[in-house]
Amino acid sequence: MTHAERLARIRLIRTPHVGPVSWHQLMQRFGSGEAALEALPDLALRGGAGKPRIASADVAERELARVAELGARHVFSDEADYSPLLREVEGAPPAIIVRGDTAMLQRPCVAIVGARNASAIANRFARQMAADLTARGVTVVSGLARGVDTSAHIGALGGSTAAVIASGIDVAFPPENVELQEKIAGDQLLIAEQPPGTEPLARHFPTRNRIIAGLSHGTVVIEAAPKSGSLITARRAGDYGREVMAVPGSPLDPRAQGCNQLIREGATLIQTVDDVLEALGPIDARMAREPRRAYVETLAVPDMGDADRDIVAGLLGPTPVAVDELVRQSGRPAAAVQLVLLELELAGRVARHAGARVSLM
Amino acid sequence: MTHAERLARIRLIRTPHVGPVSWHQLMQRFGSGEAALEALPDLALRGGAGKPRIASADVAERELARVAELGARHVFSDEADYSPLLREVEGAPPAIIVRGDTAMLQRPCVAIVGARNASAIANRFARQMAADLTARGVTVVSGLARGVDTSAHIGALGGSTAAVIASGIDVAFPPENVELQEKIAGDQLLIAEQPPGTEPLARHFPTRNRIIAGLSHGTVVIEAAPKSGSLITARRAGDYGREVMAVPGSPLDPRAQGCNQLIREGATLIQTVDDVLEALGPIDARMAREPRRAYVETLAVPDMGDADRDIVAGLLGPTPVAVDELVRQSGRPAAAVQLVLLELELAGRVARHAGARVSLM
Repeated sequence: MTHAERLARIRLIRTPHVGPVSWHQLMQRFGSGEAALEALPDLALRGGAGKPRIASADVAERELARVAELGARHVFSDEADYSPLLREVEGAPPAIIVRGDTAMLQRPCVAIVGARNASAIANRFARQMAADLTARGVTVVSGLARGVDTSAHIGALGGSTAAVIASGIDVAFPPENVELQEKIAGDQLLIAEQPPGTEPLARHFPTRNRIIAGLSHGTVVIEAAPKSGSLITARRAGDYGREVMAVPGSPLDPRAQGCNQLIREGATLIQTVDDVLEALGPIDARMAREPRRAYVETLAVPDMGDADRDIVAGLLGPTPVAVDELVRQSGRPAAAVQLVLLELELAGRVARHAGARVSLM
Repeated sequence: MTHAERLARIRLIRTPHVGPVSWHQLMQRFGSGEAALEALPDLALRGGAGKPRIASADVAERELARVAELGARHVFSDEADYSPLLREVEGAPPAIIVRGDTAMLQRPCVAIVGARNASAIANRFARQMAADLTARGVTVVSGLARGVDTSAHIGALGGSTAAVIASGIDVAFPPENVELQEKIAGDQLLIAEQPPGTEPLARHFPTRNRIIAGLSHGTVVIEAAPKSGSLITARRAGDYGREVMAVPGSPLDPRAQGCNQLIREGATLIQTVDDVLEALGPIDARMAREPRRAYVETLAVPDMGDADRDIVAGLLGPTPVAVDELVRQSGRPAAAVQLVLLELELAGRVARHAGARVSLM
């Protein structure tokens, strides 16, 4: 990939109103970051906005320089060492910033996530489960949070473990994990989606959780209170068609209630590493994914008139609705509806939601 | 019911080689205990045995007198105050010996069973669950064992609770439950299948467990090690088409592993009383059972010749086989095959197993 293309892609990623879904759509439509960047002003204009605030070349150059300085690098979703599992996910990160050995993402991956305030027994279980999984050639994915995440990474250090953090790759959180994070970046794999210098804000955590789920054939939840972040990871894993597994606990322990609820809703109850491997099924079959495809400029879709555009916009409201539903109800071709939505999003009028749903902002 | 009929039925029950299944078949075929008793020698002879050792009238009279002396009574399976749920079960006790209020068996019943060496948290959960269930009008059924059983009975004392014991109704076990057993017999319901004076032997416990499962719309297991008696109760509940429910726990606690395994096999994971009621479904519908039917003499089935008898016997081996399978493979009418099996059982040559299966002894 040329430096110019790399720069254009990063500018696209950092431009307001370009989310992961619209980034991939722009790339699919225009075939390259450079072409997409050039097309952006017209698209936003048709969506009803003025001149978009495109991230400058300077911002992107500084990001590239800083990433290099940190011994890290961008891996774009169409590059060979991007995770083949993560690539399949709707709204996959256009690029991940990594330090370490990305080869482990080509092997079977299992996420282990759970409570920050985990019990001693849960931490022990996480550590042992992670060690057992790595002994079977599995990469353990987690989020470097306190409690279960930390225990899972530590248990997996003898094998392969990937840590996905909500901050920039140069920000360590929680503070007590500075050393562990550095060790993982050195010997294992550290992954961030946000640019360097980003502090871990609340809104970054669900975003990070989708990456943990997306990287993994299955997600094991160990202790999770109702409405905890671990349940978001589990729900994303379910959305992505991946295996959702949970370790049960006493109903009288609030930290077990989220896991127990997951099991009631259909997650597989896990007691041993064999239960996990059984739930995942034959690992070789799991790794046989479709080969990655390069972005190529697609044929132009029939441009829509303002009247058509108004029909799609008129069907939108503050409640998220499935794009499929919009296609059905508008009676317009799917590609045309996607284009209108892209224009509206770039103009800051439409928001994307999990499950290929959109709403007015 | 006449005294003579009552006596005849008890003699039948206490006769060697007359198990619950053959008792009901005898009653169905001959319409009364007196007629069945009369037919017994011929049947056993055709099965290849000598004169059967029929329990004497004296033995039965002594049992009746002792039961009356204890303030207890026999309730036969075709009597109105026998449990309508237990009556449906293959191999239901021909009679139960009871002290207390049998009306509670006409209400929704839920069994709570579990480990004798239960954890403090499991005992607390059992007590609370039992109290919550009785507050909703449910009768709590258990086995008066140490641990979970005891806690369930204690929690249910403010409502209705039925205790099924493996011994005779006049034998208290474990010793520390003497007082609780007496209280249940006085205010609640105490049930035994064995005659008075019977000590609780190991082989009586699985037999007792089938009654607990059979009395109940569903069975909740709280802490159970793999291969424990509680799992037998759960398995019987499943065999009977009743709801099997289990309370999860940490996989690192051996006492939770049986429950977790049950959930993996399809039991409903239970955290609250609402989960139990939801699993049971509409209780009114559950109570609408077929009315009990009186025993009436059935039309004679075509007698089988010795050759036919040999065909059925030849299909039997030491491994239990389903009666349905014998009917199919022998090509003989079902009623005729049942008769041959009854004769062979009375002659001590055939044993019955759970799931309508039989084997050579």
